[in-house]
Amino acid sequence: MKLSRRDLMAGAGAAAFASLPGAPAQAFAPQVGKQNASFYRYKLGSFEITAVTDGSATFPLADGFVKNVAKSEVNKALEAANLPRDQMTIVFTPIVVNTGSKLVVVDTGYGPAMLEKSGGKNGQFHSNLAAAGIDRGTVDAVVISHFHGDHINGLLTADGKPAFANAEILVPAPEWKFWTDDGNMSRAPDAAKPAYQNVRRVFGALGNKVTQYEPGKDVVPGIQSVATHGHTPGHVSLTVASGSDSMFVTCDLTNRPELFLANPGWHLMYDMDAAMAEATRRKMFDMVVADRMRVQGFHYPFPANGRIEKTDTGYRFAPTPWAASL
Amino acid sequence: MKLSRRDLMAGAGAAAFASLPGAPAQAFAPQVGKQNASFYRYKLGSFEITAVTDGSATFPLADGFVKNVAKSEVNKALEAANLPRDQMTIVFTPIVVNTGSKLVVVDTGYGPAMLEKSGGKNGQFHSNLAAAGIDRGTVDAVVISHFHGDHINGLLTADGKPAFANAEILVPAPEWKFWTDDGNMSRAPDAAKPAYQNVRRVFGALGNKVTQYEPGKDVVPGIQSVATHGHTPGHVSLTVASGSDSMFVTCDLTNRPELFLANPGWHLMYDMDAAMAEATRRKMFDMVVADRMRVQGFHYPFPANGRIEKTDTGYRFAPTPWAASL
Repeated sequence: MKLSRRDLMAGAGAAAFASLPGAPAQAFAPQVGKQNASFYRYKLGSFEITAVTDGSATFPLADGFVKNVAKSEVNKALEAANLPRDQMTIVFTPIVVNTGSKLVVVDTGYGPAMLEKSGGKNGQFHSNLAAAGIDRGTVDAVVISHFHGDHINGLLTADGKPAFANAEILVPAPEWKFWTDDGNMSRAPDAAKPAYQNVRRVFGALGNKVTQYEPGKDVVPGIQSVATHGHTPGHVSLTVASGSDSMFVTCDLTNRPELFLANPGWHLMYDMDAAMAEATRRKMFDMVVADRMRVQGFHYPFPANGRIEKTDTGYRFAPTPWAASL
Repeated sequence: MKLSRRDLMAGAGAAAFASLPGAPAQAFAPQVGKQNASFYRYKLGSFEITAVTDGSATFPLADGFVKNVAKSEVNKALEAANLPRDQMTIVFTPIVVNTGSKLVVVDTGYGPAMLEKSGGKNGQFHSNLAAAGIDRGTVDAVVISHFHGDHINGLLTADGKPAFANAEILVPAPEWKFWTDDGNMSRAPDAAKPAYQNVRRVFGALGNKVTQYEPGKDVVPGIQSVATHGHTPGHVSLTVASGSDSMFVTCDLTNRPELFLANPGWHLMYDMDAAMAEATRRKMFDMVVADRMRVQGFHYPFPANGRIEKTDTGYRFAPTPWAASL
């Protein structure tokens, strides 16, 4: 006999329930109504890493969300991953690396200005940092991978002040050059102009006090940048290495793995040079798969740490099992 | 050119690092050295569910850990899942269901008596409950799936007192009958006797004040038991249903999914009737796959919530993406 959910649920309704004898009368405990502060800690060699999420944003699935594929195909991939049709949820997970001598933040989420606007769904980075026992004032360096708002806006407090007041802000040199070029902004289509203006707003609030780093070089001891241009003109990924342990921080090589690792040929609407982005991601993920490197993704499901595996048609993200102690 | 990790890491060592100009001198922030309290909340209809882990136990992989497969095969499966060879880590994740009128705990982990012995690795259930804002004294019912120590020991405090002082303790009737039968204990091999003695110890400390429930019946409104005998003679799984939402709580239908969902024919050393356990799990998982039911597993990676998918050779666990807000 094949068992079905209907068989299983028969009689499960409250109507079928007869009070068990001897059940004590209880005061009713209200539902808590609040998620855990979403941070997760692990060791990499002697480094202590904390993945600290900024939360997520959900919006209707636009027709051009994947530029080279029909919306119906995107919906199929969502369904295959048990995700709701016709909407996209993008998650944002910066990390903090305590190397033992430097406290380093990598990317910053949308930041607290979004907390109220999003009804608490995103803009959580600073409050989750505090819950994780990390004081923003003690951060030595913030490494930025690229200049999209979900990576740089958290450099500021809700009232637009520097959020990491004692930190050096490290940005990719080609990214700085591209976005701060007024000619590039003037040539950009109107719909793209706010991104350029946002770059001026955020770094302006920091007095444009940044240190530009060249992709391919060490950024801080133990953290090296890798040129992975395409998503944006100066986009970088990072490697973090301590002793014999290392991991690859993808940054925005792909967005959600259920769509874009599964289909590496899909072109996300936010990929500024989609062909270059695709070539870059295939090259990098083939390397990561061959070496079975641990990866940390920015837009992967929290805590966004795991391995990438090759499948018949693309790749798959295999999360590292959660460890309840260090 | 194929990129390798060696290329990527070239120059990543501290030796290659030259201090960036302008880096401010910083006070050094020490590593925090502590994991997040491992609980996770989600809604199921109008119910609020909290997965609250007890932690994990790691031990050397014994030859007979999988009774019908050589240790080398188990090691292959561990490696395929990026888990270390020659050792097993088992995780324990009870859940709490707040139905809106009852606060219900399902299984209890090893409990706080293990906290010190395990160096904090397990026995976390009560402290994680507190971190999740759940007061043990307000729990109305504890539903036990079966009588192994990792499910019942957390019924007691570290000093052996009832941990859920105001709760009805609900146990499967056939499980009670089996384990409390002195004839069964006397016929058991010596190595198995401590499990019988542990049942007497734990329930004795509760004055044997339990309510026996018949598998297949509602246990509390919205939570129904399902006879899934095999792992133990009276083992049950549960369905939780609220409105049109429902999920299947596997309890110990399988241990770690990387081994036992991937290989449903593998017989875990703790499966008391391994052939019955295998038949039961195949029947239940085929149902869960066909209906795409949400599942909550006890020994799955925290937070242990997701779907089960069929593969060519068995099944695979697909975790629900973490949501950073309710």
